[in-house]
Amino acid sequence: MTSTALSVDIVPSFIRDAWWTPDQHTLSEDNATEVRDASTGELLAMVSTSGLDVADVVDYARTTGQSELGKFTFHQRALKLKALAQFLNGQRDHLYELSARTGATKVDSMVDIDGGIGVLFTFGSKGRRELPNSQVVIDGPVEVLSKDGSFLGEHIYTRIPGVAVQINAFNFPVWGMLEKLAPAFLAGVPTIVKPATPTGYLTAAVVKLIIESNILPAGSLQLISGPARDVLDTLDYRDMVLFTGSASTANKLKSHDNVTTGGVRFSSETDSLNAAILGEDAVPGTPEFDAFIKSLVTEITVKAGQKCTSIRRSLVPKALVNDVVAAARDRIEQRITLGDPRAEGVTMGALASVGQMRDVRAAVETMLAAGGELAYGTLDSPRVTHADGTVDVAEDGAFMAPMLLTWENSDAVELHTVEAFGPVASVVGYEDTAHAVRLAAMGEGSLVATVCTNDPAIARELVMGIAAHHGRVLLLNREDARSSTGHGSPVPHLVHGGPGRAGGGEELGGIRSVLHHMQRTALQGSPNMLTAITGVWHTGADRNFDEEHPFRKNLATLRIGDAVRSDLRQVTLEDITAFANETGDKFYAHTNEEAAAANPFFPGIVAHGYLLLSWGAGLFVEPAPGPVLANYGLENLRFITPVAAGDSIRVTLTAKRITPREDEEYGEVSWDAVLTNQNDEIVATYDVLTLVEK
Amino acid sequence: MTSTALSVDIVPSFIRDAWWTPDQHTLSEDNATEVRDASTGELLAMVSTSGLDVADVVDYARTTGQSELGKFTFHQRALKLKALAQFLNGQRDHLYELSARTGATKVDSMVDIDGGIGVLFTFGSKGRRELPNSQVVIDGPVEVLSKDGSFLGEHIYTRIPGVAVQINAFNFPVWGMLEKLAPAFLAGVPTIVKPATPTGYLTAAVVKLIIESNILPAGSLQLISGPARDVLDTLDYRDMVLFTGSASTANKLKSHDNVTTGGVRFSSETDSLNAAILGEDAVPGTPEFDAFIKSLVTEITVKAGQKCTSIRRSLVPKALVNDVVAAARDRIEQRITLGDPRAEGVTMGALASVGQMRDVRAAVETMLAAGGELAYGTLDSPRVTHADGTVDVAEDGAFMAPMLLTWENSDAVELHTVEAFGPVASVVGYEDTAHAVRLAAMGEGSLVATVCTNDPAIARELVMGIAAHHGRVLLLNREDARSSTGHGSPVPHLVHGGPGRAGGGEELGGIRSVLHHMQRTALQGSPNMLTAITGVWHTGADRNFDEEHPFRKNLATLRIGDAVRSDLRQVTLEDITAFANETGDKFYAHTNEEAAAANPFFPGIVAHGYLLLSWGAGLFVEPAPGPVLANYGLENLRFITPVAAGDSIRVTLTAKRITPREDEEYGEVSWDAVLTNQNDEIVATYDVLTLVEK
Repeated sequence: MTSTALSVDIVPSFIRDAWWTPDQHTLSEDNATEVRDASTGELLAMVSTSGLDVADVVDYARTTGQSELGKFTFHQRALKLKALAQFLNGQRDHLYELSARTGATKVDSMVDIDGGIGVLFTFGSKGRRELPNSQVVIDGPVEVLSKDGSFLGEHIYTRIPGVAVQINAFNFPVWGMLEKLAPAFLAGVPTIVKPATPTGYLTAAVVKLIIESNILPAGSLQLISGPARDVLDTLDYRDMVLFTGSASTANKLKSHDNVTTGGVRFSSETDSLNAAILGEDAVPGTPEFDAFIKSLVTEITVKAGQKCTSIRRSLVPKALVNDVVAAARDRIEQRITLGDPRAEGVTMGALASVGQMRDVRAAVETMLAAGGELAYGTLDSPRVTHADGTVDVAEDGAFMAPMLLTWENSDAVELHTVEAFGPVASVVGYEDTAHAVRLAAMGEGSLVATVCTNDPAIARELVMGIAAHHGRVLLLNREDARSSTGHGSPVPHLVHGGPGRAGGGEELGGIRSVLHHMQRTALQGSPNMLTAITGVWHTGADRNFDEEHPFRKNLATLRIGDAVRSDLRQVTLEDITAFANETGDKFYAHTNEEAAAANPFFPGIVAHGYLLLSWGAGLFVEPAPGPVLANYGLENLRFITPVAAGDSIRVTLTAKRITPREDEEYGEVSWDAVLTNQNDEIVATYDVLTLVEK
Repeated sequence: MTSTALSVDIVPSFIRDAWWTPDQHTLSEDNATEVRDASTGELLAMVSTSGLDVADVVDYARTTGQSELGKFTFHQRALKLKALAQFLNGQRDHLYELSARTGATKVDSMVDIDGGIGVLFTFGSKGRRELPNSQVVIDGPVEVLSKDGSFLGEHIYTRIPGVAVQINAFNFPVWGMLEKLAPAFLAGVPTIVKPATPTGYLTAAVVKLIIESNILPAGSLQLISGPARDVLDTLDYRDMVLFTGSASTANKLKSHDNVTTGGVRFSSETDSLNAAILGEDAVPGTPEFDAFIKSLVTEITVKAGQKCTSIRRSLVPKALVNDVVAAARDRIEQRITLGDPRAEGVTMGALASVGQMRDVRAAVETMLAAGGELAYGTLDSPRVTHADGTVDVAEDGAFMAPMLLTWENSDAVELHTVEAFGPVASVVGYEDTAHAVRLAAMGEGSLVATVCTNDPAIARELVMGIAAHHGRVLLLNREDARSSTGHGSPVPHLVHGGPGRAGGGEELGGIRSVLHHMQRTALQGSPNMLTAITGVWHTGADRNFDEEHPFRKNLATLRIGDAVRSDLRQVTLEDITAFANETGDKFYAHTNEEAAAANPFFPGIVAHGYLLLSWGAGLFVEPAPGPVLANYGLENLRFITPVAAGDSIRVTLTAKRITPREDEEYGEVSWDAVLTNQNDEIVATYDVLTLVEK
């Protein structure tokens, strides 16, 4: 250690709900790492976990973390995420300052910081809209497994009984943490975050804010600032690891005994050689060509090209290779100013560290040796704008200029397998659409591809050919060129990940990522037992026909199974005719006996389905003002037995699902509705959706 | 090789659509294995893959198999599965004869053979009811990703571009193959089956029938009868392996480089120490106690206890251990006759091989040494009934009598980790429900547990405690004791698999298992592009307002996007009042101005939602007889803007999804319906479901 190093801060860990740093006097070059400003090389901090007991961290998560999180429902957790998003939103200035030290421009920081906060907002909202206000998620419909309906099957999700260990990459120190934390937290699974060393000080700053906000329960978030090499030794089938980073590290972790034989759930998202394909119709002069060039330049310059999702391979019609290179060059030269992000006018920053820069240069050298040609840009140190506004050749920082490579041989293996994790892309010619599909697949699995065409047939051929090799495909054309969120930006609503080289994992995708933190279990049992476990009434379970109409009960008194059954009401031909005249629905099945009888499904004239529904409401409703506020919708309506003139119907309405809102004076109640006829045959089944006061 | 061995059949493989056996003269003890009758020890066949080129098998699947299967839609593949089920159903006698040689009784064979055929029927049916008649599955709702609706996101599934290698266990040579084949085939992924050596001759016999039926397309099914140790060397991220068998083999395969770093999808289902928990309420004399005993005896005697799902640990209230042992003993002695399955009256057969028997005996010895006590049964050779009716002590066959162990120490590690894969179970006392949960979890992940109680509170505590450690939980009580399909029987509708020791995989579960053979990809694009890719109309995509009403078009002429828009129709207070009187729906929001205005969601009296729906039908319907046969249901109805007296509504109806049936003269058409008011505000959105002629 240099004496300078000993005098700087050590990035702290947050363990067992307290801040922790190693004893400064025990630090050495073997157990501590220096972290430097990406643009200036200034020493910022030291990183070390020397003496940290990882098993103890895991134990705290499994005990305190699990039990504290277990006290809340999905909706309550979602509201905490929303509160956290609002809190962090007010603290961004401080984070932007720190972020600039990582080489990030304002736009880069926005992607990382605002993007991360956006994930919290999305999960805060989706958690309340798409999950029940309980701790069990029902997956899919009920399966009736016996003829008499006394034995049912269905699937539930409950949280895994362990911890989510989240190992993040250096390029998105804020978003990377928050996009993994949000779904784990919502599921009720405690998080241990392990950020990457070069930018982990920014992650630690966010954790510091989160802890100060006092919003999250004890044990739900711990932070290991520095190496945690033995963390997998402490995990088992109850736990999961979510990894973002290099394929080589992912593979080492995946080969750990506790993964291969111990059952640790392992999800990885690794860099891939993402392609952008320019359709044969998208020639220069089309809006698609312009959108393609814009996207290509954005992807290799934002975050200095250090995104797992960046475009590495532009697959373009062979005849257009030179046009694409020229147009991209023009746009780079018009738009891009390389330099210290703190300087006025800079639009592209440094790589995260000098080490990263060396790796990227080495990768480019490998590609050049394998037949790649430098069509634009240089490997020499570029001229950059410093924080004070002066411009000269970069010396201390990790600066690289944007580069485009072309290839004589489109099939060269290195083109499709060597990743330069920086401002570098290849422009590759293809023969025809089938060839483009084949080239895209040579990436052996990618996070994302752009398909840029305005021809639906070309789009379909490309997407059907490449979809199974990709986690995400962006269709870029004149219709969405302005509104698109872009090739390189995962959105919290859609899955992020991909097969093969991309790691084989899945993150985000809305509630899908919450379910990845839960175990799916098939449940079999009687209707009453499945009702007891899920809190949702199942057909065949007991009903409670109280004297009091269930519409007179508010959420405090209404119980699952509370029901009302109406008397029979006869439907006459006059009723059907009147309804046809009133509504205008004179479909022949309701008005023409001969034509109706010729229909394969009807005995003759039948009542309108909408008549039955409307009468059903008339039969179940309790008209006086009361706790039921509105019928806001209907689900799963199926007409089973037609109702002819002279038949009668009755309705049975049963409280099926009750979802009080945490932040309103009412909630949703879903009612099981069954219409039956005078022979007790089922006429129709549906769910009535209502809002009911607490 | 003995000379006898050389004169018997070699179990053939089915490769590149032809039968293959190794050159008999090259066989030796090193590359060939003898297979014997489980009851008599008679030599039945030899198994060898000496000289087989596995890479060639994989290549054929990836090329011919993928391209032939790619010619069919989900519905067409489902119909082939149905045809195959019907064909095999007529060939069962032959299979039962072969099955008896594996030691299986008639009941055992039924589970295997009829159970396997049942899986084909289920997938044949579900594939048509729950999948579109196309090759793309849409997963979840559309996400609107831009304010103007021009940029959408959604998820699709497309089949993986490789092969499904299915490695099966010896205990279910028919079901094991068919339950993996059905979902792979439905997904459009070619299968390579590798059965276990001791019973693979029965699998080969089924494959022979399947090939003779000529129902499956070329390359969709290949069979490797014998070792395929190098198969993983040939696989990559496009492929998947589905493994059933021992944890040790699974772990070896999972550690293969092509899994840990190559991205081969690996799903394993391994034996586990499944528990059955008797609730504290289920004392002797209750129907639950009787059902519990019945299930326990069934599970250790069917297939001679050789089921991955068998009960290995009975967790019962401490005071009831002796009662449970005594009742199980009585039932065994009344019901179980051990012997050659071909003999009259035999209800329990042999283990699959003498080797298996040795393994089970060794496991029991380990448990006895660790503190287990033999409470019932014996390790000595039992008396058995031979095929000719004589009874004496077993000599040649692989016979074991049922055994029950008890334990002084309920926490003994061996009790929860050593599996005797035969007719053996432990009966273990617990202190209270929380203790039962803890003991169940000591199995470190299981396929299934039974929770036997008639108390909903106990059921809930047990299920919430153990669900995340289990793939399936069966709730057994008086209501489903007769109709239950049983602890040990996976059903095709529900997932089969479990975390931890159970392998961490998932099979079956209806369409879930089809999706495991597909890649989920997030798609982003404009409404028109998503419509082009998925074949489903998306809000915002172009509509075609032809002169011809879309209800006049049959499936041959109707196109996605064909639409009709009505004129406005005004709703008056008189209309609302008349509708209330006619239907009986006099809810205050439609009848009482003052009360309606006090409701937080309404401006005053508003039209009934059912009035709007009914009028909507009147506005979109084309009344004359035509190709539209019936409106069979409705989905996703949401009322957005209330309609007050004086407001007007119009409807826009657009063909959204067209699903012709393969085996009927009609199909389903789903229509996007939007009601808007005179200000173009959205009043309601829903999907109208109709049947339309081809």
